[in-house]
This record gives sequence, C-alpha cells and structure tokens, in this order.
Amino acid sequence: MNTFPQTRFSQDATKRQADLPPPGAPDIEIARAARMRPILGLAEEKLGLTPDALIPHGHYKAKLTHDAIAGLRERPRGKLVLVTAITPTTAGEGKTTTSVGLNDGLNHLGARSIVCLREPALGPCFGMKGGAAGGGRAQLLPMEDINLHFNGDFHAVTAAHNLLSAMLDNHLHWGNAQDIDVRRITWKRVIDMNDRALRNITIGLGGPAHGVPREDGFDIIAASEVMAILCLAEDLDDLQRRLGAIVIGYRRDKTPVTARDIGADGSMAVLLRDALQPNLVQSIEHAPAFVHGGPFGNIAHGCSSVIATKAALALADIVVTEAGFGADLGAEKFLDIKCRQADLRPDAAVLVCTVRALKAQGGVAKADLGRENVEAVRRGGDNLRQHIRILRAFGLAPIIGLNDFTGDSDTERAAIENICAEEGVRLVLARHWAEGGTGAADLAQAVLDALDAPREPVRLIYPDDAPLGEKIRAVATGLYQASDIALSDMAARKLGEYEALGFGHLPVCIAKTQYSFSADAARGSDVAGHVLPVRDVKLSAGAGYVVALCGEIMTMPGLPRQPAALGIGLDRDGEIVGLS
Amino acid sequence: MNTFPQTRFSQDATKRQADLPPPGAPDIEIARAARMRPILGLAEEKLGLTPDALIPHGHYKAKLTHDAIAGLRERPRGKLVLVTAITPTTAGEGKTTTSVGLNDGLNHLGARSIVCLREPALGPCFGMKGGAAGGGRAQLLPMEDINLHFNGDFHAVTAAHNLLSAMLDNHLHWGNAQDIDVRRITWKRVIDMNDRALRNITIGLGGPAHGVPREDGFDIIAASEVMAILCLAEDLDDLQRRLGAIVIGYRRDKTPVTARDIGADGSMAVLLRDALQPNLVQSIEHAPAFVHGGPFGNIAHGCSSVIATKAALALADIVVTEAGFGADLGAEKFLDIKCRQADLRPDAAVLVCTVRALKAQGGVAKADLGRENVEAVRRGGDNLRQHIRILRAFGLAPIIGLNDFTGDSDTERAAIENICAEEGVRLVLARHWAEGGTGAADLAQAVLDALDAPREPVRLIYPDDAPLGEKIRAVATGLYQASDIALSDMAARKLGEYEALGFGHLPVCIAKTQYSFSADAARGSDVAGHVLPVRDVKLSAGAGYVVALCGEIMTMPGLPRQPAALGIGLDRDGEIVGLS
Repeated sequence: MNTFPQTRFSQDATKRQADLPPPGAPDIEIARAARMRPILGLAEEKLGLTPDALIPHGHYKAKLTHDAIAGLRERPRGKLVLVTAITPTTAGEGKTTTSVGLNDGLNHLGARSIVCLREPALGPCFGMKGGAAGGGRAQLLPMEDINLHFNGDFHAVTAAHNLLSAMLDNHLHWGNAQDIDVRRITWKRVIDMNDRALRNITIGLGGPAHGVPREDGFDIIAASEVMAILCLAEDLDDLQRRLGAIVIGYRRDKTPVTARDIGADGSMAVLLRDALQPNLVQSIEHAPAFVHGGPFGNIAHGCSSVIATKAALALADIVVTEAGFGADLGAEKFLDIKCRQADLRPDAAVLVCTVRALKAQGGVAKADLGRENVEAVRRGGDNLRQHIRILRAFGLAPIIGLNDFTGDSDTERAAIENICAEEGVRLVLARHWAEGGTGAADLAQAVLDALDAPREPVRLIYPDDAPLGEKIRAVATGLYQASDIALSDMAARKLGEYEALGFGHLPVCIAKTQYSFSADAARGSDVAGHVLPVRDVKLSAGAGYVVALCGEIMTMPGLPRQPAALGIGLDRDGEIVGLS
Repeated sequence: MNTFPQTRFSQDATKRQADLPPPGAPDIEIARAARMRPILGLAEEKLGLTPDALIPHGHYKAKLTHDAIAGLRERPRGKLVLVTAITPTTAGEGKTTTSVGLNDGLNHLGARSIVCLREPALGPCFGMKGGAAGGGRAQLLPMEDINLHFNGDFHAVTAAHNLLSAMLDNHLHWGNAQDIDVRRITWKRVIDMNDRALRNITIGLGGPAHGVPREDGFDIIAASEVMAILCLAEDLDDLQRRLGAIVIGYRRDKTPVTARDIGADGSMAVLLRDALQPNLVQSIEHAPAFVHGGPFGNIAHGCSSVIATKAALALADIVVTEAGFGADLGAEKFLDIKCRQADLRPDAAVLVCTVRALKAQGGVAKADLGRENVEAVRRGGDNLRQHIRILRAFGLAPIIGLNDFTGDSDTERAAIENICAEEGVRLVLARHWAEGGTGAADLAQAVLDALDAPREPVRLIYPDDAPLGEKIRAVATGLYQASDIALSDMAARKLGEYEALGFGHLPVCIAKTQYSFSADAARGSDVAGHVLPVRDVKLSAGAGYVVALCGEIMTMPGLPRQPAALGIGLDRDGEIVGLS
C-alpha cells in the first residue's frame, strides 16, 4: 500500500515558473526573479509550526528555536532519503540541484517532504566553486544569503574555534599551568576563506609580550572540529559536553589536554547557542528546506546537522538529505559517522549522475563534453557501477537519478539504461533543472515506490569495536577498491596512542581527494589494486571520530589564478552581480 | 522658545521597572527580566517606520533597509548631542550607560529621541572588559545578542578584510603581476578576538605550493580599515569606492597598490552590503537605539556609523551619540574625522564623570574608592577641567553629567560642584543606573535647555590643508597638553611620502593609550610638558585618514591571566551565564 497521497497535484509551481527567466539564465537571475513567500506563513502552512517556534532572520529565513526542537522529540519520525552521486568532475552532476528538485517533486505529488542540506562555505564562493544552493529551477532562496553570510552559523563556528585557540595561547603565555607541550599542540586555527598562505605559519613572535612562539596553521572552516560538533550534537547539553572533550594537544607527560581543561567549553557553547538552531528556507516552488551544518565531504564528514535532520523527520513524512561528493566519501561518512552516532538509518537512496559526468569519467575533456560519445559513457559507467556497489554494501538499493542536460543524446541515455539494467537498479530521468518539481515527478514517484517496497536493513561497514586501522582498511578495501592501506609510521603510532587513550571505539573520517576512489586525483576511476596511503591521523574526540588524512589532501584550499571574486560586485542598484 | 514638548510624561517606565531585579543585580539578570517590545511595532510607533523599512533579526532586532535610508535623505535633520567622558579608569564612568539613560530621559520627557552607539566587539567580552550595552536600568536589549554576534556586522567586516588579504597573497602566489614589494605590504589580517600570539607571525611557509613567505600579523577587528569604512561610508556606492581606495602596500617602484588594483573591492562590498544597514534595538524603557559600527576610540575612530547617525537625525528630533573613551580620544576623533568627513556638527555635549573616577584620577587605588576622599576628588578634578577645555576648543559648552554611584558622599559631590562652578559649566546629577529614564530627567532637561540656548559654532582643531605632522601637533599641543610631538624618523619619512602621493589633505587618527593625555598610561593626568612620541604612521586611504601610532599602543590586545571566558557558559536551561 502506498502511504503517500499522490493525487493532490500542485498547480502553483507551473504558474510561478512562467514568469522566470529561462533555465539557461544565470542562477542568480532566476533566483532573484522568483517570488518568495514569507517564511513564517510558509512554516505554518507546510510544517504546522506556529510563529513562536521560529526566529525570523529577515522575512524569508528563520531559525527553529531550541524550545520548538525539544517539543518535537516524542513525535513519530518520517522516512529518510539519502541523495548521493557518482565521483564528481568539473562537468557537474547536480547533486544539490537534484536534492532540491526531488523535494520539489515530492511536494508536487502532495507528499509532506522537507529537504535538509549542509550550508555552503563562504570562502569557496570567491574561489571557483560557486554557490551551493541548487541551480536552474531547482534552487533554494534567498540564494545570495545562503551562499554568503546566511544566518551567521559559520561565523559563530569560526569565533568559537578561534576562542579556544586564543585561550590556549593565553594559557601558554601566563605560565602554562597545564604543562602543555608546545611541540605537541594539535589544535589549529580556522577561517572561512581559501587562503593557502595561512596553511603553515609561525605565531607568537616579537618577544615576551607577544606570546609563546610556535608553529601553527589555519584550516578552512569546514574542516573545523567545532563545525563537526555543531553538525553532530543532539542538543545544547551535548554540544557543551562535546566541546569540552576536544583534545587540543598533549602535556609533557603525553596525557591529552582538553578544551575543558583550559576552561573554554562554556564560552564556546555560548558562541554557538544560536548557531545550533536549524535554518529554514524555501525552494523556488516554496517547498520547505533546512540548511544547516558544514560542507566538504572530502575533508570533513560534510553532512547537514543531526539536529536539523531529526527536527525534519518529526515535522514531515519524508526528509530528503544530501551527503557531499561521491558515495565513497559523502554517503560513507553519512552512514558510518552521522547515522552511527545519531542512530539514524536512511530508508531509500538516490544516486545522481549525468551523461556529461559519465563521459568525463570515460576520459572526455571538458571542451568535448557537448559531442555525442556513447563509448565514453560506457567506459564512465564503471564509475557508476562502483557507486552502486558502495551503496549496496550498506544494504541500500539506489535509484539512479539521471539529471538531464541540454544536448544529451538518446543513444547516450540508452547506454546508461543498459548499465542500470545490468546492475538491476531503477533509472529515472529527472528534468528539475529545466522544469522544477514537475520535472522531478518521476523521480519523486520512484522514491515513493521505494519507500513502500520491502527492503533489507541498512548495515554499517565496520563495527565500533574494530581497531582504528581496521576501520580505515574496511572502507578502503570494501568501498574504494583498494588492495590494502599503507599507514605511515606516524599514523600507525598515533592510532595506537588513540586506542591506548580509550578512543579506539570511534569511527573514522577519511579525508581524501573527491576525484578518485584512490588518494590520487589523477587516477580518476582507474584504481585497480591501489593501496590507500594514510599519511597522518588526527583525533577529533569532541566530534567523535578519528580523521585519516590520505595522500595529498589539504585542509585549506587556495584561490585559483583567476578567482571568482574578481567578477563579483554590486551594480548601481546595490544588487549583487557575478555570484553563481 | 523651547521646541521640545515636555508635558507628555511617560508612565510606562516606572511601572515596568517595578518587576526588575534591583539595580545592583548583574546586568544580564536585569536585562533578561526586562520585557522587550516587538521591534517592528516599536519602530512604527516611535519612528514612523513601516515594517517594510526594516529587516527583522529575530523579534527584537532589525536592520533599516538601504531603500528606507535612501528615502530619508531629504528630510530635515534633528539635533545631535555628543556624550563623552573624562579619562577612563577601572573605576568606571558609565559613558554608555549615561548615553542610554539620557535617551531614556529624553523620551521620558516626551522628546522624540534616538541614541546611536557603536557595536561592542565580541573578542573583548571574553577578556576583561565586559559588554558595552549600558548597565543597571539603562541598558540596551537584547543585551546578549548585542554583546555577542549581534547581526553579524563584525563578522562581515572580518570576512571582507581577510578576503582582501587572501586575494593579496593569492596575487603574490600566481606571479605578482602588480610587482608588489613583499617587504612593503602594509595590509594585515584581522580577527574579532583578543589574541596576542597573532600580533607577529610569518605566513606562506612550507614550500612553493603554500604561498609566498612573508611577515604578517593580525589586528583586532576594531582596528580594521574596513570597519572604519563601514562607519564612514555614506551609502553603498561610497562603500565600494572607499574599499577600492584602500592601499595595501607598495610596488617595487614605490607606487601604492590598492584593493581595486587586485580586483577585491567588488567582492568586499558584496560581503558588507547587509552590514552597512544600521541595527535598531530598544532600551529597557523601549526607547529606540541604533547600534552600528566599530568601537575602540583609542586605536580606531571608534564612533557609530555615519549612515546610522544620518538616518537617526532624519527620524528623530534629537540624536544622542557617544564617542569612545575620554574627550581627548573619542570626542576629538568624532569631530575631526567623522563630523569633518560627513559634514555633521554636534549641537550639545555631555561630559560624563563619577566621584569614584575622579578619586581614581586623584590617585586613590581601586580598593579604596569606597572611602570618602574629598581631597582626591579635587586633585582628580584637574582631569575633568582638561576635558572641559578640550570640548571648549571645539566651541562646545559641555554639560557635566555626574553619574551617581551608591556610596558617593555629599561633600565629594560638592567638591565637583565647586570645580564646575569655577569652570562655568552646568553640573547635573544623573541616576539612570538605578532609576532609568526618570533618574536622567534632569540631565535630559539640561540638554533640552542647551539645545534651545544660543551657542557658538563648532570648529575643528586643524584645517584640511595643514601638513600631516602639523595636524598631529595641533591635537597634541592643543588638547593633550603636550609641549611638542616627537616623530620617529620612519614616521616623518612616511608622512612625507603620503603628502607626496596626494594624501596630505586627510585628517589624522591618533592611536594612543586611553589612560593618559600622554602616550604613557602610567603618567595618568600628570602630563605637564610631555612630548607625544609618534612611533609610526599608517595610511588609511579608504577610511580617509592617517593613523598616528603613539607610544606603546598595540592594535591587538591580549587576554588577561584570568579571562572572563572562564566564567561564561550555558546553564541547564540553555541560558547564558557569566556575561557582564
């Protein structure tokens, strides 16, 4: 029996879209032409939230209050739908766009559905990445706010993180009562900026009045353990407890020093109190969306917050959520870290791909992606097959969402159909980018069907009690097609130390390039027999995982030669131009 | 003729205060017990602003839109009242508290009055300074928000400032097309944190992939030129123009390189677009307040924004505004920088002092301030006399606001009365800390009287066309009681360079300790014949002034041995404790 009503079709969407610029127009122009509804009214109508449950940030954004969240705890939970993708290329797959479009489609079919996304980082908007609020007719609004300061959550994370840094250096300056070994400080500073010159720095120079000299560095905000804590905390109590548990370094006697040991946890929690409240916005079609928590599934776990997901599950029948980059990175972490810690399990999974992206995986250069090349699609299909295997390893039966692009040919599509038939998975063409929710109605229906179908239980890739090294190996050999892992001496020694300190039960968060199953971006999909090199590991005791840094992955990106920032500005009317 | 109606006494204030904790209770407890009114309704009733003129940030804070500001340009302007103080001591003078209380008093007397304050920096809240939203019954609300992230303005300033830094280092990394001399980069990074270990750093270490090695450092956000630009910009166009004019360093051929030269001005303006909109809040007595722009009159100009002041002057008959620290620093910069640039002139001035502060100026240690000491009050009176002379040098006739403290004796007060009589200025006792607006009614009446009385025109201390060194000398000898200034060789050389580059017409922003008229905090009021040492100067071409760094003043504070952060946290209900 289908438990989701499908007859109440929304007429609004089609009408609204008639006035919008064509789908090929810049995202910011479509976004600005779209009419938003006041968020308090929308929340009341779609989610049954009274205005006192929300703190407005302008007329079109709001935060769900801690009190309202507490009031949702006992409600029955809806179903959780994971959206992930094949290995990304510069061709673009449209994972966020598909998540937004699928939610529009579900709402279009009359389902009570919310989409939960991570927030975009501000820094990368000025690099080359562009925004992260969807595209075409499947966008979240207000797009400029979401892509820039939004409601200040990341600024709060930056402030809390760097307050701990300042208190640490202040502790050293005033006599170092904790006897912290300045050579064994592991806590770095963070900034929401692509700024390679801050990767490796020395601080505390200039004499005794200016602190204790030592090596340091800045990570990008997405890699902050405080960000992960914001994403994984169940409530304010859990937030403060996790903040206190952060290990910032080691004493001369090798025992760990925590944020609580130097008295920083309370002030950090105060700085994060408002930021822990999920942000409610809407799509172009007025479907509700929570956008909350940090991005970057390559160097972080990169999922939207637990608190938003659980609130959404209490407020709606279906929650669509996205996990960053390919299934090897985002979906794995979503399951092995977020779902493990928060006791969540997805009920269905959508794997997004495009003809263009498969051609890119099949070796076609970006300039040639517009030309038909069925053979390249077939070659690139190996990447799709591996991502299907990854999801199946968790017990998930993915629906393949083929994100339609202008210029895709029927024979190319047919090649993908063949692959899916061979793999025994359902393929659905989705046209939300051009058509909004109506274009994603088939995909939405496929998801509804999957939610009604019998399914095997979701399983995690490794048990809590496996040794840390075995956990990394399980992911590498089980999902990345690696023959083995190669722990550096330092990594092996530190994993042993973490286990001796009682952190062996934690899951692992693998930081590696998003462009290959291996740790070498240049290898792409061609990774047979590779060995995953783990160059270093890092304890995130507050977030509750151990980071494994593989290959040359860096936790602070740089700006490109011609950063996007050069083209961004205000026009004569004070409107933002150049943001994509 | 008195142009301000005085009969419409507010009955609300007294009623509301009956329920509040007694004035000696912690500020945060009084603040939390106070009932706020929804800001949109208050803005409509008190300022005639319709809801579409405001962007709500929660229910009790709002930003005035750029469109609404543009619509106010042609309105007649109200009167401007400057609140300044004697030289600060740890005894406290209550300048912000008096500004808030005076505005409450004016509203209590039926005047249409707004108070305009600068925003508190977040970093110092965790050091020793505490908040900066008033105290006792004269506070602005919501106090926690204002003292912490507020509406994100400072985070936006930090992001814009550090984007310029990142783009500068990125420019060096990718080939340095502008031929910037890395030894002559003058642009530092900023953070809203007391963090001495970041004062002197080296960046770009670790090899060719990680940028160009060079010396750098972080200033506190209040010292950011971007903050000054936010405070001094007339509108978005002026903002972007000023951002582009920022000089970040010099080429090999000694010509200046600007933010515009490396293409950063547009993106910086985009990051600051929302932050340029003034923040509207309310006092405990529901009097309106704009809180907008950066603090720290010692190292910055430290005034609230021009855009807020002008909007307030268009919306109200009286605008009370505060200038940071003593009249030597805050009032001088308010007049010689802000008023000069924005073509504003104050119509009246209030000089705040306390019995305790005069005793402290008279040499009494903090522990002994509770004991009567008339002789110390008399000695400390010299400081008061000099601040009166400073204001008179600008053509202002100050009203002395004696901020009442529990434990002040009648004979001590009488000593101050004598000083004021000798100086020919009006003294008014103000009890707003204990009583709110009713306690400040006498002070408010004195201000109304002053606004109705004939007065001489306000004059600035030096003309635009004086050489830069002469401008510094004019302030030092005219206001600081200095016999002369001593320019370091470097400072003298750089002033000559600035003049050669066409920046000689700019005013000067003197950065020095707030604890003495001299550059030596230890000398306090005893400064006869001192020579002001100018160790360095810095061009702020976008802000439109030249900073003169005097003595040992630092542009990045440190945390104390026992930072306030240690006592700040969340209680079991998620409420903030320990913030003062």
